[in-house]
Amino acid sequence: MSKTRHPEPLPIDNVPHWDIETDVAIVGFGGAGACAAIEAAEAGAAVALFELSSTAGGSTALAGGEFYLGGNGGTPVQRSCGFDDSTEAMRNYLTRCAGEQADNAKIDAYCEGAIAHFNWLVAHGIPFKNTFYPHRHVLPFSDDCLIYSGSETAWPFSEIAKPCPRGHAVQAEGDAGGALIMKILSDQVQQLGVRHEYEARALTLITDKETNIRGLVVRIDQQERYVRARKGVILCAGGFAMNDAMVTKYAPLLHSGTAPMGNPGDTGSGIQMGMAVGGAAINMHEGHVAFPFYPPASLTYGILVNAQAQRFINEDCYQGRIGYYCLEQRSNRIYMLANMEDCGDLSQCYLNADVAASAETLPELEADLEMIDGTLVAAVEFYNRHAARGEDPLFHKARKWLKPIEPPYVALDCTPGRGAYIPYFTLGGLDTLVTGEVLTPAGEVIPGLFAAGRTACGVPRRGSGYASGISIGDATFSGRMAGRRAALKDS
Amino acid sequence: MSKTRHPEPLPIDNVPHWDIETDVAIVGFGGAGACAAIEAAEAGAAVALFELSSTAGGSTALAGGEFYLGGNGGTPVQRSCGFDDSTEAMRNYLTRCAGEQADNAKIDAYCEGAIAHFNWLVAHGIPFKNTFYPHRHVLPFSDDCLIYSGSETAWPFSEIAKPCPRGHAVQAEGDAGGALIMKILSDQVQQLGVRHEYEARALTLITDKETNIRGLVVRIDQQERYVRARKGVILCAGGFAMNDAMVTKYAPLLHSGTAPMGNPGDTGSGIQMGMAVGGAAINMHEGHVAFPFYPPASLTYGILVNAQAQRFINEDCYQGRIGYYCLEQRSNRIYMLANMEDCGDLSQCYLNADVAASAETLPELEADLEMIDGTLVAAVEFYNRHAARGEDPLFHKARKWLKPIEPPYVALDCTPGRGAYIPYFTLGGLDTLVTGEVLTPAGEVIPGLFAAGRTACGVPRRGSGYASGISIGDATFSGRMAGRRAALKDS
Repeated sequence: MSKTRHPEPLPIDNVPHWDIETDVAIVGFGGAGACAAIEAAEAGAAVALFELSSTAGGSTALAGGEFYLGGNGGTPVQRSCGFDDSTEAMRNYLTRCAGEQADNAKIDAYCEGAIAHFNWLVAHGIPFKNTFYPHRHVLPFSDDCLIYSGSETAWPFSEIAKPCPRGHAVQAEGDAGGALIMKILSDQVQQLGVRHEYEARALTLITDKETNIRGLVVRIDQQERYVRARKGVILCAGGFAMNDAMVTKYAPLLHSGTAPMGNPGDTGSGIQMGMAVGGAAINMHEGHVAFPFYPPASLTYGILVNAQAQRFINEDCYQGRIGYYCLEQRSNRIYMLANMEDCGDLSQCYLNADVAASAETLPELEADLEMIDGTLVAAVEFYNRHAARGEDPLFHKARKWLKPIEPPYVALDCTPGRGAYIPYFTLGGLDTLVTGEVLTPAGEVIPGLFAAGRTACGVPRRGSGYASGISIGDATFSGRMAGRRAALKDS
Repeated sequence: MSKTRHPEPLPIDNVPHWDIETDVAIVGFGGAGACAAIEAAEAGAAVALFELSSTAGGSTALAGGEFYLGGNGGTPVQRSCGFDDSTEAMRNYLTRCAGEQADNAKIDAYCEGAIAHFNWLVAHGIPFKNTFYPHRHVLPFSDDCLIYSGSETAWPFSEIAKPCPRGHAVQAEGDAGGALIMKILSDQVQQLGVRHEYEARALTLITDKETNIRGLVVRIDQQERYVRARKGVILCAGGFAMNDAMVTKYAPLLHSGTAPMGNPGDTGSGIQMGMAVGGAAINMHEGHVAFPFYPPASLTYGILVNAQAQRFINEDCYQGRIGYYCLEQRSNRIYMLANMEDCGDLSQCYLNADVAASAETLPELEADLEMIDGTLVAAVEFYNRHAARGEDPLFHKARKWLKPIEPPYVALDCTPGRGAYIPYFTLGGLDTLVTGEVLTPAGEVIPGLFAAGRTACGVPRRGSGYASGISIGDATFSGRMAGRRAALKDS
């Protein structure tokens, strides 16, 4: 029987000496860690940052580079593009997105602080252009900024909160935004004189007799270094998408997706370090499931059906909401059925779904797909009849996306596991206060321990309510909150 | 900031004295705790059992009283009723039930040990009658024993494993079986001279410097008693259905059910005690969702539809599988549509669903239910056309349950939250080995700590794969394994 627990916390009495002494120690140099470091350093704390890989970036650097922001009358970008966003609308929207899992305190803090966060980002050098990109896209192709990045205009959200675009893409061409964000933030970290170590693997936390967190053990250059953190340790080590055993154990639904999304360090090590000192990991079954079928936006004119030829969602939702529903279908086939012209140039579609069949008539298509006799024909005829009147009585797709699907027909095979690109990352993590303080299962604070970004369970809580920019928005915001709170702590 | 963590483990150095010294301390006197106590005592260990309430029983005593058992050529009951059950069929069935979440080691041990477990139960006084109750029912009304208690005969399970009835109801009239089981087991515990304390609240575990578990603190008669457990502590304190905050945080889908099922002590306290010493809680989002629409079995001739008039499951599945699918529908209406005569005496149906509408024609019914024009009519016509041929191309309901639904029609409102009785309990808990040893998130054993029953995450892992008798089967089996292993441990 093993006598060791990994990552078993190290009692402070067993620390042979301190190699590094600082006020705030941060694990992970992605979006959350960088913002935590900047806030803590600006508040006057000595900060040391430890990053597993050879460079700053984390998963933020791999992302398109959007922040989900708004409310308070609108960010400068929203206002200059003619959008008047209210905090209440933003709160109502995000609360519905999170459903039963909503952390109201976090949603409130995020919505109320979103403009200040935008201004902070700008003050720290993140560029945003005052332009609106009106097309249905996961990211602007151009260096434009504002985009509808969630399901704001789609049912049922459109009935709950006045729609407003809140995706703020950083000013960069294409999908290089995340890398630009991290370049800027890591420059700021360095300018502030924050000590940062690369290729530094955080091993475990150091606790005292009262189980306060007093530091951590880091392996650098093959040696264990003992880091004293007078004010606290902030875990910003990402989620656990790259840890296959953890995904199987905690988030089995995600496994039907095709690939984890993120950087190789998203192994859940930060969550495990927190759990090993009694931190609660919550919402571990949830994740963002991408289903990037637009562009071309014109595929939104199509319909998604399962093996029973049943539609299951309004296709004008955000692609991630649709992805989550696709996994939930438990169906052995999912097809996107569209007019051939509306499929556009499929080689440009990120989804990369195979063409399962194409046909001039619906009975032909149905037969080619080996669907149950009459089901697909009836489903499309029903859809078309109502679409011609601008109606979608079943799922309320918005009128602008409604028109009868005309031949020639194409069916794309969107079945998870059959070729389409449906990647995922995790949304579960350590339970924290708005301040980033980590909680036990009973809701008590673990003194000296903080978490932010996807190591924590933050504002985004459900794949069915995900929006582009909400994870980076939350990661940078929660990183700041944790950095600020840690810096204030009595050491 | 709080300096205490609840239930913060107590360092052994802070134990003022030992009030009780034993080899094995067990928390919770339900099915798991009783079996753990019997095995440990029979192996020669001194055992002390602590129960929060004033009597033995736990949630097992509240259950109908079935054990899911089979394989190995069949239990004596199966064989005498003419069923030849194979271990492979049982394993294949349970593996599919658990899906991605399957713990293969646990399923193997359970299937291979099921006959021995049956014999052990009989040897300890549990009576089973050698009779088969062939009707579709959650429990026999009579004192009969054997029943199809899961989805063995339903698609897709019927294609994966040769169906065999494995629900073994204890010989008792009606639903008093669970109480009888616990009466017998608790008599055994007492005959073995096991010390047992009622109204004894386990507060926290006692750990040494190596974080081995050395005992626990129990509150009895308003006083904290320090219990030394030389060989180990076994947590058998049930699941967390009664802890609303935990259900919201960990298993939000279950919340759409109408009521938690179990005894008031199912507050997750055992899981929390385990987590507080570094135990991993896994599969926390899952639960059993009951949807007791039979008897009358004749409702199985009906169809379940959502607000879009889409069927979503073969109605001949086990009621719990159907309940889970109902919650997953995210639909604002779910109806059971059936012929009036097939509804039988609805006042006898446990589901207690309101009649939403009754009508002589389908268009009338559709209109009364305010369903989308044409949808329900088309769905029923499609179903009836195929049912007349003995076919269910959409969901493969077995031929014996297929016949066209004739007027007069009745629609029962089965929408979660609108009156129907859809209770739930939790299936997540501490990660354990087959021996009951509790694991950390990294998969290391916590020496001296065991868990069984719903405090652990056992064989039943998914609501969609639940079967009556699998939780009590697993609880009693896992209790025995933990009791045996703890008794063997070096003290």
